[in-house]
Amino acid sequence: MCGIVGLVAKSYVNQTIFDALTVLQHRGQDAAGMVTCEGNRFFLRKDNGLVNEVFRTRHMKRLTGNVGIGHVRYPTAGSSSAAEAQPFYVNSPYGIALAHNGNLTNAEDLADEMFRADLRHINTTSDSEVLLNVFAHELQAQGKLKPEPDDIFAAVSAVHKRVKGGYAVVAVITGYGVLAFRDPNGIRPLVYGTRSTPAGEECMVASESVALDISGFSLVRDIEPGEAIFIDMEGNVFTRQCAENTKLAPCLFEYVYLARPDSIIDDVNVHTARMQMGIKLAEKVMKERPEHDIDVIIPIPDTSRTSALEMAKHLNVTFREGFIKNRYIGRTFIMPGQTQRKKSVRRKLNPIEMEFKDKVVMLVDDSIVRGTTSKQIVQMARDAGARKVYFASAAPPVRYPNVYGIDMPSPEEFIAHNRTEDEIGEAIGADWMLYQDLEDLKETVNSCVNHRFADFDSSVFDGYYVTGDIDADYLARLDQKRNDAAKLTPDSADTEDGAPADLHNKIQ
Amino acid sequence: MCGIVGLVAKSYVNQTIFDALTVLQHRGQDAAGMVTCEGNRFFLRKDNGLVNEVFRTRHMKRLTGNVGIGHVRYPTAGSSSAAEAQPFYVNSPYGIALAHNGNLTNAEDLADEMFRADLRHINTTSDSEVLLNVFAHELQAQGKLKPEPDDIFAAVSAVHKRVKGGYAVVAVITGYGVLAFRDPNGIRPLVYGTRSTPAGEECMVASESVALDISGFSLVRDIEPGEAIFIDMEGNVFTRQCAENTKLAPCLFEYVYLARPDSIIDDVNVHTARMQMGIKLAEKVMKERPEHDIDVIIPIPDTSRTSALEMAKHLNVTFREGFIKNRYIGRTFIMPGQTQRKKSVRRKLNPIEMEFKDKVVMLVDDSIVRGTTSKQIVQMARDAGARKVYFASAAPPVRYPNVYGIDMPSPEEFIAHNRTEDEIGEAIGADWMLYQDLEDLKETVNSCVNHRFADFDSSVFDGYYVTGDIDADYLARLDQKRNDAAKLTPDSADTEDGAPADLHNKIQ
Amino acid sequence: MCGIVGLVAKSYVNQTIFDALTVLQHRGQDAAGMVTCEGNRFFLRKDNGLVNEVFRTRHMKRLTGNVGIGHVRYPTAGSSSAAEAQPFYVNSPYGIALAHNGNLTNAEDLADEMFRADLRHINTTSDSEVLLNVFAHELQAQGKLKPEPDDIFAAVSAVHKRVKGGYAVVAVITGYGVLAFRDPNGIRPLVYGTRSTPAGEECMVASESVALDISGFSLVRDIEPGEAIFIDMEGNVFTRQCAENTKLAPCLFEYVYLARPDSIIDDVNVHTARMQMGIKLAEKVMKERPEHDIDVIIPIPDTSRTSALEMAKHLNVTFREGFIKNRYIGRTFIMPGQTQRKKSVRRKLNPIEMEFKDKVVMLVDDSIVRGTTSKQIVQMARDAGARKVYFASAAPPVRYPNVYGIDMPSPEEFIAHNRTEDEIGEAIGADWMLYQDLEDLKETVNSCVNHRFADFDSSVFDGYYVTGDIDADYLARLDQKRNDAAKLTPDSADTEDGAPADLHNKIQ
Amino acid sequence: MCGIVGLVAKSYVNQTIFDALTVLQHRGQDAAGMVTCEGNRFFLRKDNGLVNEVFRTRHMKRLTGNVGIGHVRYPTAGSSSAAEAQPFYVNSPYGIALAHNGNLTNAEDLADEMFRADLRHINTTSDSEVLLNVFAHELQAQGKLKPEPDDIFAAVSAVHKRVKGGYAVVAVITGYGVLAFRDPNGIRPLVYGTRSTPAGEECMVASESVALDISGFSLVRDIEPGEAIFIDMEGNVFTRQCAENTKLAPCLFEYVYLARPDSIIDDVNVHTARMQMGIKLAEKVMKERPEHDIDVIIPIPDTSRTSALEMAKHLNVTFREGFIKNRYIGRTFIMPGQTQRKKSVRRKLNPIEMEFKDKVVMLVDDSIVRGTTSKQIVQMARDAGARKVYFASAAPPVRYPNVYGIDMPSPEEFIAHNRTEDEIGEAIGADWMLYQDLEDLKETVNSCVNHRFADFDSSVFDGYYVTGDIDADYLARLDQKRNDAAKLTPDSADTEDGAPADLHNKIQ
Repeated sequence: MCGIVGLVAKSYVNQTIFDALTVLQHRGQDAAGMVTCEGNRFFLRKDNGLVNEVFRTRHMKRLTGNVGIGHVRYPTAGSSSAAEAQPFYVNSPYGIALAHNGNLTNAEDLADEMFRADLRHINTTSDSEVLLNVFAHELQAQGKLKPEPDDIFAAVSAVHKRVKGGYAVVAVITGYGVLAFRDPNGIRPLVYGTRSTPAGEECMVASESVALDISGFSLVRDIEPGEAIFIDMEGNVFTRQCAENTKLAPCLFEYVYLARPDSIIDDVNVHTARMQMGIKLAEKVMKERPEHDIDVIIPIPDTSRTSALEMAKHLNVTFREGFIKNRYIGRTFIMPGQTQRKKSVRRKLNPIEMEFKDKVVMLVDDSIVRGTTSKQIVQMARDAGARKVYFASAAPPVRYPNVYGIDMPSPEEFIAHNRTEDEIGEAIGADWMLYQDLEDLKETVNSCVNHRFADFDSSVFDGYYVTGDIDADYLARLDQKRNDAAKLTPDSADTEDGAPADLHNKIQ
Repeated sequence: MCGIVGLVAKSYVNQTIFDALTVLQHRGQDAAGMVTCEGNRFFLRKDNGLVNEVFRTRHMKRLTGNVGIGHVRYPTAGSSSAAEAQPFYVNSPYGIALAHNGNLTNAEDLADEMFRADLRHINTTSDSEVLLNVFAHELQAQGKLKPEPDDIFAAVSAVHKRVKGGYAVVAVITGYGVLAFRDPNGIRPLVYGTRSTPAGEECMVASESVALDISGFSLVRDIEPGEAIFIDMEGNVFTRQCAENTKLAPCLFEYVYLARPDSIIDDVNVHTARMQMGIKLAEKVMKERPEHDIDVIIPIPDTSRTSALEMAKHLNVTFREGFIKNRYIGRTFIMPGQTQRKKSVRRKLNPIEMEFKDKVVMLVDDSIVRGTTSKQIVQMARDAGARKVYFASAAPPVRYPNVYGIDMPSPEEFIAHNRTEDEIGEAIGADWMLYQDLEDLKETVNSCVNHRFADFDSSVFDGYYVTGDIDADYLARLDQKRNDAAKLTPDSADTEDGAPADLHNKIQ
Repeated sequence: MCGIVGLVAKSYVNQTIFDALTVLQHRGQDAAGMVTCEGNRFFLRKDNGLVNEVFRTRHMKRLTGNVGIGHVRYPTAGSSSAAEAQPFYVNSPYGIALAHNGNLTNAEDLADEMFRADLRHINTTSDSEVLLNVFAHELQAQGKLKPEPDDIFAAVSAVHKRVKGGYAVVAVITGYGVLAFRDPNGIRPLVYGTRSTPAGEECMVASESVALDISGFSLVRDIEPGEAIFIDMEGNVFTRQCAENTKLAPCLFEYVYLARPDSIIDDVNVHTARMQMGIKLAEKVMKERPEHDIDVIIPIPDTSRTSALEMAKHLNVTFREGFIKNRYIGRTFIMPGQTQRKKSVRRKLNPIEMEFKDKVVMLVDDSIVRGTTSKQIVQMARDAGARKVYFASAAPPVRYPNVYGIDMPSPEEFIAHNRTEDEIGEAIGADWMLYQDLEDLKETVNSCVNHRFADFDSSVFDGYYVTGDIDADYLARLDQKRNDAAKLTPDSADTEDGAPADLHNKIQ
Repeated sequence: MCGIVGLVAKSYVNQTIFDALTVLQHRGQDAAGMVTCEGNRFFLRKDNGLVNEVFRTRHMKRLTGNVGIGHVRYPTAGSSSAAEAQPFYVNSPYGIALAHNGNLTNAEDLADEMFRADLRHINTTSDSEVLLNVFAHELQAQGKLKPEPDDIFAAVSAVHKRVKGGYAVVAVITGYGVLAFRDPNGIRPLVYGTRSTPAGEECMVASESVALDISGFSLVRDIEPGEAIFIDMEGNVFTRQCAENTKLAPCLFEYVYLARPDSIIDDVNVHTARMQMGIKLAEKVMKERPEHDIDVIIPIPDTSRTSALEMAKHLNVTFREGFIKNRYIGRTFIMPGQTQRKKSVRRKLNPIEMEFKDKVVMLVDDSIVRGTTSKQIVQMARDAGARKVYFASAAPPVRYPNVYGIDMPSPEEFIAHNRTEDEIGEAIGADWMLYQDLEDLKETVNSCVNHRFADFDSSVFDGYYVTGDIDADYLARLDQKRNDAAKLTPDSADTEDGAPADLHNKIQ
């Protein structure tokens, strides 16, 4: 997962992009990057690390210009962790820098095709570099010395014909402006907004509306599936539908877990959606165990707090903050001759004993993937004296891989793999395991708008892939690749030590 | 404010001290330090920065030994921000390293006296260096080649006679063990706990019980006011009352704001105390406006969440998370030729509009100091569409300086300075300003134990200083010094850039 | 000035390229870079700094592959000092990285042309980026999916037709091999050599033969003017004359000053050439002042030592080391409120007084540019007690700008500007000023081979530019540009502090 | 070996101390440190690395004050290479920082004694820390609130009574001034000089006179054996003989190799002494082989150049620079899975073949220790085509350990160990091995002054130790300790990577 932002402003964009990346940081803490454009020059800074580690005053000083894009990246298993930060850059045609959120499902074929058709060399395993080169090739094919919005949109249309997957893209073309577009199924989110300044209107595109909020931009609307937006150097905004057969099928996981609660995605207030999830869970409790004995509902902070609170309200059960999250990140040092300590959830959460002591506790989490943390949390609740420990997940069991840009472990590692819901409960040690039903989950999101979504990317729950190109073979190959990559991944000690892996030194 | 930890274990202590400092990080994000002792050698690492920035693998490798102490520091106005990290060290007698939380009110006189009596040179403005040298002098005065616990406790007794203020201290004496002690009024917190290992019992002292929790230590009890604890190299624990005329007068602000909710301080569960504060606030609402029109109660995250939740429950009013806190720290870069942007609370909090829209909102915060943030938050609530905005503070108005180690602005900067509660409400733009009463606040804490506290350090609320040595003259001098220092403080650009101010290069 | 190296080997090339760059460091201490190629991947590391500062273990670990190129760069006035390190990279066609030594005299026109013809965006002011794109364009124009040596040489031929100036170039083409070529006048040096290993023959190209020596490569020969050499991934070597109207006109300054004495350039042993310069100087002394009163001949270390020694031998005058060079680089810190100290030659040289005391001293330097150092040295000799101070320069007066890659100050700053040789002597305070005659200098180089060179780049001495495209207008524009750039150069404080100017973050 | 400097000036001393350390860098490239004093505050910066790496602008800004001392350190086998940089500091009495050059032969006993007598804890294995504490103890024993020069000299006298070995010491006492003193045999060098400024006279002490030269200080004289010099804050200079039974027995190795040629040590111009060594070698050639067939004399750069030049002149044989020294430091990276390459002298020296081809070559070096380099050089000369290779050493065979501060390998590793001079020649592959006779070497130094030195520290040549406390037992223990330490030394990979070993984080 990643966060992206693009901005055309009336003064230097570096600080505003920095601010936007900071509030998008939850979408990716692995690497950050920014490209700005002044005159005919690009300025780039990207590196592994958090936004406020990657950008220092010395970098910001060089990131001049009123136009730019930014990116935060989530670590992706299956590619070297110290690998490719975004944006990527090509100098032909015009000079283009690009960053994206999502995943191309046909990246390898494209890389090959790219080399044959255009001799374009892809130097990394990043699908972003592929996407950039496809776009660059198509834009070059328009053959214009000075590209007009029409040329740019034509290139985007051509891109949609070649690439498959889920993607929200932002790019800057030297001397021309900022472009952004979204895949034909609208799987990954993308919004834009504007801000009035004495010098004129400024326009920002971003993964989530919170990036607009922090700098006083007003949300205009979501970019439609398949739609592209181009903002020229003067701030003029052009939009165009560039794909055929589009439908809006947003990723359900954004609402469950990925997005910030204060974001609005495809007209859905994430906060409201999560409250609805809590209500649905309460309803399921009442349906399954109308005589339940729950004394207290306790969220696993932070994401599930909203759901848990509404669940408690609708069940008329006490809601309490029973776990305190450690805000500061710890770390286990591997010393010579020592064996590595087991990673304990205690480094992340500390229970307040009195909230568990002799109670029947319903723990609420947004979702369960591997289940190892859930299991430890259940045990922690018991150790704190809970009489019974129930566990509710605001999302259904996660059973299938995600191929649209959310990095997850191999399906065999999912706790739901080959287990019924009851078996999962048993596996994590819960006295009662309560999962949201998929239909209920879809309903929570649909209930937040006055229309119904054409479809959802619900693939991790039901294995249904809206792009239609994913079959068992594809998933098998993916799993194989992930396993191979995992074996090759160098140990992390390598890049420890504040020495950020200098991926920016890999040629882009 | 600061956090301290000391540990005698059966294997290397570096990781455990690191973990403890990480969960004490909320007590100080400015600098961190650790001293370990192996054989007759001390190993020290300290620097400006967060715990996980200061300690890297290369440092941890050198921090060998089964005995050590650690410290996190809050930035203190009035001393250079790039100044003195702790622990401090003297090589005579024995080799002693020391760190503390609190403030000596007679540090300057002592530094002077120290030089005359013992030719001890104090190289910084840190009262910790003074405290260390007083202790070192008194320990040397015992004249033992090998100090016994009795000698060490005798030195502590002598220290108590000379120093004034609030302090919780931890020290390590090369080759002998770890010492900790607390001022005669118990203003600053200090606990200890033990952990069983196959190799024997290990003992940790720390500012808060959460530091024990994370590494599986069981809380034994608080160190008493004036009491000292000494743990020798073998892990034998000795305790002794070393002061006269002691009474337990813990700092009220710890319960209101400073401590983690999952800590237990002087037998008081901080979480419970905060819940009580919410109940008291609810009672005050009912007393003042039994017919109140509050639609929703919204906490200012994170500290006030506990109080706000109980307040809502007791008023039977909806509780909602209306503000989302930005977890990642932003920053304003000062570029050449640009004027500095106004610091906006928007960088820290984002409102969820639907929770405010057309509602009468009661905002709850733990306390109000300058009021500038509160004012912006009130405005933010209005901008989000609130019909009326009420504001409750779980603590009474802050009107007086703290001289026991909590760094605060000059009293003239307090919003409560020369204002009634109503005037404060007006100043921050609230339609109703609700302050906890001081007696109620004390009552909340007292209600959590089955005894009554002899006294409290409530000085910031009522100007009553339990040490008895603080008069108007003292406060005037303090204020003068703070103002002078503020003028001299170099601009922060100096130490920006990832180049941590190398205070460790100042001789200690 | 710069140094370049290219290598195709049977095992990883990173260490050998590192070693080569280290012995080429005298050609450029400003920045260093390396690209290696493994499979279809490029790995790049470049930054400001010395070779052993730029390449650390963590970088070397990533620089994998049996093929690669390297570069060291001299700081160039007229371009931002924190600017563009080499190699540069383009991904189309094939993926090409390139570095060069020299200067294109028509770089600006080419950049413009490039954009119009091919939409190739040049993101820096570096002529290397221009050269790379010209080559990339011409190679793409060959239209081959897999380029053969013929295609590559054809592209080089096309490059020679478009670019003007002096240049020695090295490039690596992903998956194909290393290419190197030299301008049609052979102004800048380029040699190649081979090394046998159990796994097969390895081939290296480099600016100077010393780069071969250090790793046990045997010098095969110089690359001819206009000639190109291509070494494929298997180590097969192909050479081809790719230019018309070539002639060998090497830069005289290489022999005078730039090259290492132990290098062999265009069959000339630099050491021998410098000895010859000393002999010619001796002859000139005997011609001008057969009854000279020189007591001792003292070189200005290090370059002139060889000439001075032979000069002394041929005059039968005592030779002594009268100046000791400070091997460790000092620095003047600019502190707030302090005025900058005058740069003193004393930071670089210290006289041994007894060698000057009451003697008639002939100082020998390789050449004189600004003359400020010479003047200080003469004064230093006098202060040390010299009765008379004579000054000999192994090269003629420097009067004209260099446009083939040697960075020099503006001609008005040359001490020889508008001065006769006698006036120069007066200006630097020498009692006798002895300059090598240009014809004698050429003769020294010619005498080292058993043929005569077709021509020399002697432009800095006589204003004769072998490329034929340099006129007064060009020089005037150059001077203007240099002056403009100088004004814009930010003060160095900006990048001081160990924070290497992150030029690699500028998009290439 | 180390270099030291102390300065009392009329303005900030940081830049001048920096400059002095830079020209003393040849005495130690391992670590550097500086303490300055302003008012009652000390400011310290020390770290591993070269002078210009350790001191950056951000450090220099903090090193304020008109008084200070500096130090450069040579890596010492037998103590961790990432160990203790100087100066060291104690805060009692007064605050004293100290650095020294040399070695105490009774450091361990003193450390023990120190603890018993004064409870002073020594935290490192550095004898400097011991020396500092002895001095601190003795100064405290004077019992003055404000020490006068008399008190300080009394303390120095007491120090001389307790410590043994060779040492030149510089110290700064907070608020009082700079002190320097030299051991009673004057083994290690120490000079002082003055500089007039408009604000008054400034005084510097330093290891070598070159440190004075670079900043325009005039050499006043050497500090006598056993003498101390104290410069108070106003710049008043006091000197006093503080030891009994003194005699001047300077280290012969300073003249042979350690000191810069442009330094004057104990009235001996090092340059002259080295010329004399060359003359003596010439005489020995004529005595041994009057009919010698030497074609050319070639120095091993840089130290032996002076001797070789005079040797050639006196033999009337051609002198040539046949080896070019690589000025830039290379490095061998140890990559995973690779075996370490043999360290080759080729990384340091490159022969100019034509100077060897078919000639009988006399190579001249200052001395031979292990002989491994000499052997490689002889082979290199042969490979370059020399008909015969002779080898002359300006110093006699090195056969015994140095205990006065020059770090050397274990005697068994000396090539002269258990070998006659002829056998040594055979071992290094020379056709003729020519060693300076010890009496001749002493004579060269004596010939440079118009008196004869009372004695010399010639221990490495003849095993005669002037301090009289070194016996076979001592040397055996020393050797054992060195071997033990060598085994414990962690591999250097540990501190590679620009991460300077943070010895300053060890408590001082």
